[in-house]
Amino acid sequence: MTTPALRPHHDGSPLYVSHPAPVLGDEVDVRIRVPDGYGPVTRVLVRSNPDHEPAWVDAVRDGAADGWEWWTARITVANPRHGYRFHLVHADGRVEVLNQGGLGDIDALDGQDFALVAGNPPPSWLADAIMYQIFPDRFARSAAADERPAPAWALPAAWDEPLDPVHPGRGRQFYGGDLDGVIEKLDHLVDLGVTVLYHTPVFPAESNHRYDASSFDRIDPVLGGDDAYRRMIEAAHARGIRVIGDLTTNHSGIAHEWFRAAHGNPDAPESGFYYFTDDDNTTYETWLDAPTLPKFNWNSGELRRRFIDGPDSVVARWLKPPYSIDGWRIDVANMTGRLGAEDLNAEVRQALRRTMIDVAPDTLLVAESTNDAATDLQGDAWHGGMTYPAFTRGVWAWLGEARRIPHYGWDGEETDDMWFFGIPTGMPRYTARQFVAQLQRFTSQIPWRVQLGTMSALDTHDTARFATYATDGAVPVALGLSVSLPGLPVVYAGDEFGLEAVDGEMSRAPMPWDRAAEPAHAARIALYRDMLRLRRDHPVLATGGLRWLYVDDAAAVFVRESAEESVLVLATRGAADATIPAVLLPGAEAATALYGDATVTVTDAGDVRVRAAGTAFAAWALPGVTAPPSRAAETEATPEAFAQLGGPAR
Amino acid sequence: MTTPALRPHHDGSPLYVSHPAPVLGDEVDVRIRVPDGYGPVTRVLVRSNPDHEPAWVDAVRDGAADGWEWWTARITVANPRHGYRFHLVHADGRVEVLNQGGLGDIDALDGQDFALVAGNPPPSWLADAIMYQIFPDRFARSAAADERPAPAWALPAAWDEPLDPVHPGRGRQFYGGDLDGVIEKLDHLVDLGVTVLYHTPVFPAESNHRYDASSFDRIDPVLGGDDAYRRMIEAAHARGIRVIGDLTTNHSGIAHEWFRAAHGNPDAPESGFYYFTDDDNTTYETWLDAPTLPKFNWNSGELRRRFIDGPDSVVARWLKPPYSIDGWRIDVANMTGRLGAEDLNAEVRQALRRTMIDVAPDTLLVAESTNDAATDLQGDAWHGGMTYPAFTRGVWAWLGEARRIPHYGWDGEETDDMWFFGIPTGMPRYTARQFVAQLQRFTSQIPWRVQLGTMSALDTHDTARFATYATDGAVPVALGLSVSLPGLPVVYAGDEFGLEAVDGEMSRAPMPWDRAAEPAHAARIALYRDMLRLRRDHPVLATGGLRWLYVDDAAAVFVRESAEESVLVLATRGAADATIPAVLLPGAEAATALYGDATVTVTDAGDVRVRAAGTAFAAWALPGVTAPPSRAAETEATPEAFAQLGGPAR
Repeated sequence: MTTPALRPHHDGSPLYVSHPAPVLGDEVDVRIRVPDGYGPVTRVLVRSNPDHEPAWVDAVRDGAADGWEWWTARITVANPRHGYRFHLVHADGRVEVLNQGGLGDIDALDGQDFALVAGNPPPSWLADAIMYQIFPDRFARSAAADERPAPAWALPAAWDEPLDPVHPGRGRQFYGGDLDGVIEKLDHLVDLGVTVLYHTPVFPAESNHRYDASSFDRIDPVLGGDDAYRRMIEAAHARGIRVIGDLTTNHSGIAHEWFRAAHGNPDAPESGFYYFTDDDNTTYETWLDAPTLPKFNWNSGELRRRFIDGPDSVVARWLKPPYSIDGWRIDVANMTGRLGAEDLNAEVRQALRRTMIDVAPDTLLVAESTNDAATDLQGDAWHGGMTYPAFTRGVWAWLGEARRIPHYGWDGEETDDMWFFGIPTGMPRYTARQFVAQLQRFTSQIPWRVQLGTMSALDTHDTARFATYATDGAVPVALGLSVSLPGLPVVYAGDEFGLEAVDGEMSRAPMPWDRAAEPAHAARIALYRDMLRLRRDHPVLATGGLRWLYVDDAAAVFVRESAEESVLVLATRGAADATIPAVLLPGAEAATALYGDATVTVTDAGDVRVRAAGTAFAAWALPGVTAPPSRAAETEATPEAFAQLGGPAR
Repeated sequence: MTTPALRPHHDGSPLYVSHPAPVLGDEVDVRIRVPDGYGPVTRVLVRSNPDHEPAWVDAVRDGAADGWEWWTARITVANPRHGYRFHLVHADGRVEVLNQGGLGDIDALDGQDFALVAGNPPPSWLADAIMYQIFPDRFARSAAADERPAPAWALPAAWDEPLDPVHPGRGRQFYGGDLDGVIEKLDHLVDLGVTVLYHTPVFPAESNHRYDASSFDRIDPVLGGDDAYRRMIEAAHARGIRVIGDLTTNHSGIAHEWFRAAHGNPDAPESGFYYFTDDDNTTYETWLDAPTLPKFNWNSGELRRRFIDGPDSVVARWLKPPYSIDGWRIDVANMTGRLGAEDLNAEVRQALRRTMIDVAPDTLLVAESTNDAATDLQGDAWHGGMTYPAFTRGVWAWLGEARRIPHYGWDGEETDDMWFFGIPTGMPRYTARQFVAQLQRFTSQIPWRVQLGTMSALDTHDTARFATYATDGAVPVALGLSVSLPGLPVVYAGDEFGLEAVDGEMSRAPMPWDRAAEPAHAARIALYRDMLRLRRDHPVLATGGLRWLYVDDAAAVFVRESAEESVLVLATRGAADATIPAVLLPGAEAATALYGDATVTVTDAGDVRVRAAGTAFAAWALPGVTAPPSRAAETEATPEAFAQLGGPAR
């Protein structure tokens, strides 16, 4: 389904769904638009699947506008994830089925249905959010840091010293970035247009990345401690910037106070917090094979009480005053609570979110789940994911080049292999078609609302930097996609300076603040500023519908749409020349350029032609979508539906 | 992926998987075959996903045989559902990914991975099983039945009286079939080649279908009671026929002793067994909108204890002597434990199966789940499903005709609408391509082992009979597919007499025993006998691999394969002429016809040509598959895998 054509459309945006955040029992109107002359379609049914048993309603034909017919049905939200799909009956009896798996002439999988999510709405501010990710040891260092001794584990380094990617430097090289340093640089975030600051862990630990927490009860004194954290959050909030923390629910460090209490001490109250595998509590399950990272055992009620349950838990403490952070990113959320025959993941994530709702409901919860995250991203807890296959890997494979660059591997050996997000076979080379196909595939099982909360990262502290592998001119294209496709845009600190990094270790270099004025840096910062402004100036890019209008090997053209405005987007690697039938894009003659080096023209035949001479990202403003008034109130249950549901004779 | 080509292949059969029923921690060797000259493929990796985090091993090239290269990797089973896929690296760097979703050039969904299932093996006898379904009131009536008064709810009917499909006759028309009647007809099952008798409910109830049980503690006296049931089971076992009962875990009847104790009596121990919605226990949740069918509330520990937990439970009682039935089919398994925000389904099915394992492990558990059953059919409890979208609906849509036949609907009104398995838009018209695509789609998320336990029904007591809607000559094709595709063949009583039925009510007609000798009946019986014998004589049809060799709009050609034998199958609606490259089917020159009016020839170019003059099912015996010895023991973890898993710096 990667070459779009004239076809019916629905997605989770307000044009098609009357209520983005219903609760169980609410009525929601779902609409579909069908091109005039498609079929003709004589009947549209909506299938829901309450309690795993199909139920049908006939949609009502609302009328037509701008070359499209609209149909609406009113459905009642029956389950926390309420899946639904459309069956379109043609005049000749042919039936097509539309769900997130696409439009097809055979039946569709339940797991790929469109889905409403009841309860657990994302925070009110998500729609405006533009995130910025920092790695505290490397972001900025205040003068106060000079007064603090380096911790015992640290190998101190000067801010301009090169990264040492070989153990022990890898985890212990210590640049001494601190929270007062962050405060000093908040205006940089304001200048970029950022609204959310996400920082990797700030709890005490024994490494520069701090994913090996030794406590969740205080902020690392090396960063300035609790007080500096409070001041940093206040300073961010004062600038309209929200703060998201980072919590490791899969494991702690071996220096964690809970682990130290439990290790060698089977009678400790914390003994059940970990998976000890001997009677003496000396051997234990870990994150993968890392002995410094013992895995939490979520069977423990006491662990739940201290960590995630209720107003005194770790999860709650930092959401409450005087800190009042605005949410959590959960590290290794995909493995949390999962070990062999055990899978407590849903229990843990739901309990964690319940606590957040109790103490600070207008907060965000995102889950690290670096591969296919569909099983977990159903909206019951995580509002979105920090996940790579749908957007990030697709962007790299389409807009990048697999370059062999010497560097040091985990084992300290030099290599020029390129690891690609955990895939040993390296980076594939995608066409635009493959990019779109992969995006569609990996979002097909995720409710629209959760797609909007999922980070559209070009890179993170765990990956190489995209700029290092980008083909000529591709950085603006990738960045443009991150602000114009559904999802939460996120800038990894340093990307706006054009930093490069061959792998996830080298991506943790200190920020080159003193070189911000250099032309190359300044130009890249301006690019980021412009792109983030595009997103902020056009809310439709956050919450509007998404229709793919044209995809070939080189180029993809799509439109984000609402009743108020539309934004047409071209992304291309190499030259592009796309012709789009007029009915697909009413109002194209009014297109106003917003960004990029490309043109939109309307041909004599009325078709829309989008052209670029080479690799480019371009966007145009268009009028909003006109739709006839909804007749959803006239929806009636499909005749005979009851009998059909259960067979005739019960 | 419906037009097969020369391409790599893997499935869950013994040719490719060393152990069909491992436990956690077991090593299992998984193999893939790649056509010579495909690519060439220079490296094969197997990706597992233990605890939701990818892990990789490099497969070892075993060698080549018969035009195919074989690669094997040894993996360790980490989770109850252990998904895995193959990444194939070509000499030019291109990577292809193969999982149950197909072979592709973008990444694949975890949910469509091949999957090993640890624990809960199906019964040893499943591989030989051929099932026969009866509806006790309509199957056979012994002389003893004449001695028994009809129950109060019944509207007695003579055996040859027409069905009354309008209420109250619909649920109450009573023909008086009984268990001694079943005993008298067991030799008919032996004659057909049946090995498993599945009967719809035999507990006391207030309807002819008995899905509204009034007790689970005894057999309906109207059927002959406990004693007759015991005798029926003994008589079946004596003939090598196993017996599967039918249990309603979603609801009981309002006459059930538990419901009567709880209704109007909030203090009753059974009060928590149902979802009463008022303080007086007078209103309650039901199955859909049927007030006679109150829904069970599986939050009740006491309900679990009485019904599914432990050796004194209902589930256990009938598995133990003196009854010793061989398994359960669970009615409305898809809705069981699901209501609104609550989903206890996995808990209930797993507890139910644990009890079965405790008291009688060599038993079968199948779940009614009439639509997409993938979420539940992961092997943790149900060995398979009674489900329609993958096989049944596809067969109908391909090999049937949507006929408008007047009949009575649930509401008692005459109609000529055709309901199609709960889909109000009626039966679609599929090509063979669509049939195969739908089969592949709806099995893509179900582990191979669970596919083998899933019923390949042409029809059931809940559906019209296929013969009524079959196109000319299509009954043997449909029946042939049910015995030759992976899955559990099942004959719904009466199909072998050629009975027709316009809907699921009319499909419950009494068996026409006295007309068995009429030529049309006798011919259909012979067809069934021959087809079931084909299955029994060729175990590869039960457990062999499945490769699609050719699919066009009219015809599908596939082969079931093992090391011992292969069976080539053609199914076609209308004339077929399929040319298959020689390498796809080594040994075709030795093809021996087993069934059907079609030919296999080998062309001068060595290709295999399969032809039929019209609608046909045909099968040929071929030699088994030759594969080089496995070098799985040489498997090593992929270099750098650890670092790739977690990012470099933790």
